[in-house]
Amino acid sequence: MSHTKTEKPVYRTELSPLSFLQRSAAVFPDKIAVVHGDRRYSYKNFETRVIRLASQLRKYGLEKHDRVAFLCPNIPALLEAHFAVPMAGGILVAINTRLNSDEIGYILEHSGSRFLFVDKELFPLVDKLKKEDLHTVVVDDSGEPGDPFEIFISEGSDESIEIWLEDEEEPIALNYTSGTTGRPKGVIYTHRGAYLNALGEIIETGLTNNSKYLWTLPMFHCNGWCFTWAVTAIAGTHICLRKTESSLIWELIRKEGVTHFNGAPTLMVMLVNDPSAALVQNPVTVTIAGAPPSPTLINRIKSLNFNPVHVYGLTETYGPTTICEWHEEWNMLDAELQSKLRARQGQAYIISDLVRVVNANMEDVPKNGAVIGEVVIRGNNVMKEYFGLPEATATAFRGGWFHSGDLAVWHQDGYIELRDRLKDIIISGGENISTIEVEQAIVKHPAILECAVIAIPDEKWGERPKAFVTLKRGAYATEQEIIDFCRTQIAHFKCPAKVEFSELPKTSTGKIQKYVLRAREWGDKEKKIN
Amino acid sequence: MSHTKTEKPVYRTELSPLSFLQRSAAVFPDKIAVVHGDRRYSYKNFETRVIRLASQLRKYGLEKHDRVAFLCPNIPALLEAHFAVPMAGGILVAINTRLNSDEIGYILEHSGSRFLFVDKELFPLVDKLKKEDLHTVVVDDSGEPGDPFEIFISEGSDESIEIWLEDEEEPIALNYTSGTTGRPKGVIYTHRGAYLNALGEIIETGLTNNSKYLWTLPMFHCNGWCFTWAVTAIAGTHICLRKTESSLIWELIRKEGVTHFNGAPTLMVMLVNDPSAALVQNPVTVTIAGAPPSPTLINRIKSLNFNPVHVYGLTETYGPTTICEWHEEWNMLDAELQSKLRARQGQAYIISDLVRVVNANMEDVPKNGAVIGEVVIRGNNVMKEYFGLPEATATAFRGGWFHSGDLAVWHQDGYIELRDRLKDIIISGGENISTIEVEQAIVKHPAILECAVIAIPDEKWGERPKAFVTLKRGAYATEQEIIDFCRTQIAHFKCPAKVEFSELPKTSTGKIQKYVLRAREWGDKEKKIN
Repeated sequence: MSHTKTEKPVYRTELSPLSFLQRSAAVFPDKIAVVHGDRRYSYKNFETRVIRLASQLRKYGLEKHDRVAFLCPNIPALLEAHFAVPMAGGILVAINTRLNSDEIGYILEHSGSRFLFVDKELFPLVDKLKKEDLHTVVVDDSGEPGDPFEIFISEGSDESIEIWLEDEEEPIALNYTSGTTGRPKGVIYTHRGAYLNALGEIIETGLTNNSKYLWTLPMFHCNGWCFTWAVTAIAGTHICLRKTESSLIWELIRKEGVTHFNGAPTLMVMLVNDPSAALVQNPVTVTIAGAPPSPTLINRIKSLNFNPVHVYGLTETYGPTTICEWHEEWNMLDAELQSKLRARQGQAYIISDLVRVVNANMEDVPKNGAVIGEVVIRGNNVMKEYFGLPEATATAFRGGWFHSGDLAVWHQDGYIELRDRLKDIIISGGENISTIEVEQAIVKHPAILECAVIAIPDEKWGERPKAFVTLKRGAYATEQEIIDFCRTQIAHFKCPAKVEFSELPKTSTGKIQKYVLRAREWGDKEKKIN
Repeated sequence: MSHTKTEKPVYRTELSPLSFLQRSAAVFPDKIAVVHGDRRYSYKNFETRVIRLASQLRKYGLEKHDRVAFLCPNIPALLEAHFAVPMAGGILVAINTRLNSDEIGYILEHSGSRFLFVDKELFPLVDKLKKEDLHTVVVDDSGEPGDPFEIFISEGSDESIEIWLEDEEEPIALNYTSGTTGRPKGVIYTHRGAYLNALGEIIETGLTNNSKYLWTLPMFHCNGWCFTWAVTAIAGTHICLRKTESSLIWELIRKEGVTHFNGAPTLMVMLVNDPSAALVQNPVTVTIAGAPPSPTLINRIKSLNFNPVHVYGLTETYGPTTICEWHEEWNMLDAELQSKLRARQGQAYIISDLVRVVNANMEDVPKNGAVIGEVVIRGNNVMKEYFGLPEATATAFRGGWFHSGDLAVWHQDGYIELRDRLKDIIISGGENISTIEVEQAIVKHPAILECAVIAIPDEKWGERPKAFVTLKRGAYATEQEIIDFCRTQIAHFKCPAKVEFSELPKTSTGKIQKYVLRAREWGDKEKKIN
């Protein structure tokens, strides 16, 4: 790989995560970069595999900024793609493996992907999709010579390839997120943003070259919050994980000496309640986002010698963008107050601009912990655009700030604390669910007249969708029937946990008043998110 | 301070260390940012003082990119200048306090500085200089209301000021270095470079917000290797230090719980040999540059519970640019071999491009640890230019790489190891000395016909200058006379430690053969630097 770019001034190298792998492979060639079961790849191996994959993408006709889709769990192939695809000059589309076939088909088509790498177990999801223009490679994830993915890369060249990157603001990845509309939107990340966010993660979570990072967080979520690039930059060890089973995670924590892992509170609850849960010898940094961790969870996490770090962000912000930075003096406070402080989303990462909480006129709300406004964000940690959706981008960027759709109070000390959402989405186990998408799926059922979906609090998942439906005159359907029907339409995790049959509260103009339903389900809770 | 810059895309904020102070003051307002004797400034205080100083510079007529000189030891005023000067839109010129009056006068004039802030004790150095066009403020360093510097900032405004920065590649600092010519050259740093190098220092030396950084390294050296900005970014604590006295340093290490400090081996030798030297309770990271640390020194450092980090760089590279990254498996080797490995300069920082060792045709020398070539560097850690010297810049940047002038071998594992210098400079206690400048000073003595100055090894200072002189026919001078004469011309640390009277070895065309003199003094040492 050549980074010479002689046309650039001597004092300027375009910021790109590609330099991280190049450097770690040069400085720590024999260090273990990737662990996957019994497989071990050194940084030199890792780089060689990446170069081969990149060269093959070129050989099969990849042109600059072509999209390359991966539908894989957290396995070496997907990690390698985080470097090989941009090295070849393409844009990585890491698809959520929890989606159904239609949803995946939509993303493949909308992104215009020219390549698809699909894990053997997930192949049924794409089997029936139109794939004529899609060069498809199955990943057996065996690492053995017969694995189609291994055959593909084995034919690649070991010679470093010319890098096409001319400007650090070129796209590196395209990540689809469930927004407020029924269809997911594609979020464009740049090389510059990915580079800076990776450095931010290293600093904020204290990664070092002795770190062993366990891949509990899906790599398809914001490219693993940029940890794909961050752990590589610091020359730590990636520990891959096909399935987030808590007993296996506990086994790996002990066997591999894990120092860091990330996830939503749902994952953490599952882990701390596993029969294998026990004090770890060396402290493990556990970075939590997706929903505020509860005091009970925090206490349990700490009792296991885990060090909890609470962060907040969105797909549009490369993952985490704020952190609840801990103040030493807070250690003197009682446990409940400590947990209350830690449940706040905090303030910007070192590499981010300070976030604001604003009213509808883009004016700061008072820092009094009471007035609610919208969290707005700007800076190098904000996406470049929604792919192919200039209007949606302009709306999200109105007033010169990215509108998160999250409602928060602003505390006197400058920390923000989320309270509710403007966006009609549900966050369940760290996954976004568009209520509109669920509603559209439900009303396809022949018995249903109309429907409204809201989030309800759930102990395990944080939130789950609940549907309120009105049946057509004379029609009949059971709760289970509707749920089952829904599962034929959209990903299982998006389907309602409960269905209630009732009249829907409406305004005089006929608009459904979801807030009435929410009030009924959430009662007088201070926060309307969980 | 406003970073809004609404004309920029939402996803782009110009990289600038200014954001570091803004963020730390917002997130950790009450945390101690600066310690100086009994004085303590919180991050909020620090920011307020910086804003006042910046607003005063504007009030006194600072225009964009005006140079603002500081001649101060490591005191709060100079640290504040690292943010206030760029906040106002100026370029900071932190002058080496070990220079003499003429040299300082040259820098003030060459830089075109419009402001001079000078420490009370250093005022005699500038007393006789022409200062009509130079707004001069004395810094008593008392922090008390009567201190002229305190009066100056007390008149400043507390209101945040509009930031003029439009492009992250605008200059932030101008640092003069003794190069190969008689006169120092001014090295231009950019906001982007300063920002990235600061993040690099945080990551490579493991700074956290619990870090307490002791200012043993002069802030006038590469802006303290960018630690002025790095420690602020991470919201650590700066511990200022007027004088590098080893007993005081030991006192502060214990009293303030220092976690990090930096310096040349000379400082480290002084410290470990101080009567107060004793095991520290918590490990202290000691970052060493300026010359390779000896095995004896490394062992002594480690025995005190200091963790040595060996780095290498130049003024032209914002301070350190390579690091001898330690490999865990090296801990198994015998102590001597470990020290040998650690004495190598290593490879690039995470934020830097990999460095190369090249021959005269810019081809890589073999990685065999034997063939010597020049170390060349490029990337975001390279200066923008030599101020006002386009030809010198072009020469330094020939072939699209910055030429360090340092000669090294390239080991099989990619690490570099310095062996000699192309540039005719001496590095004594971390300070560069131009041999040409010393020669020019000596030949002004009426008795001297000609002279050649080379470095000789010195146990305390690493290297010291030695002059070989030929007297005019019939003239007479003693060694001490020549040294004393020299001290009237140039800074004391630049004057020869020894003078030898002899014929100078020359080529047939009359060029002095310094290598003959070096061979005589250095014998068969593998390295011709120390």
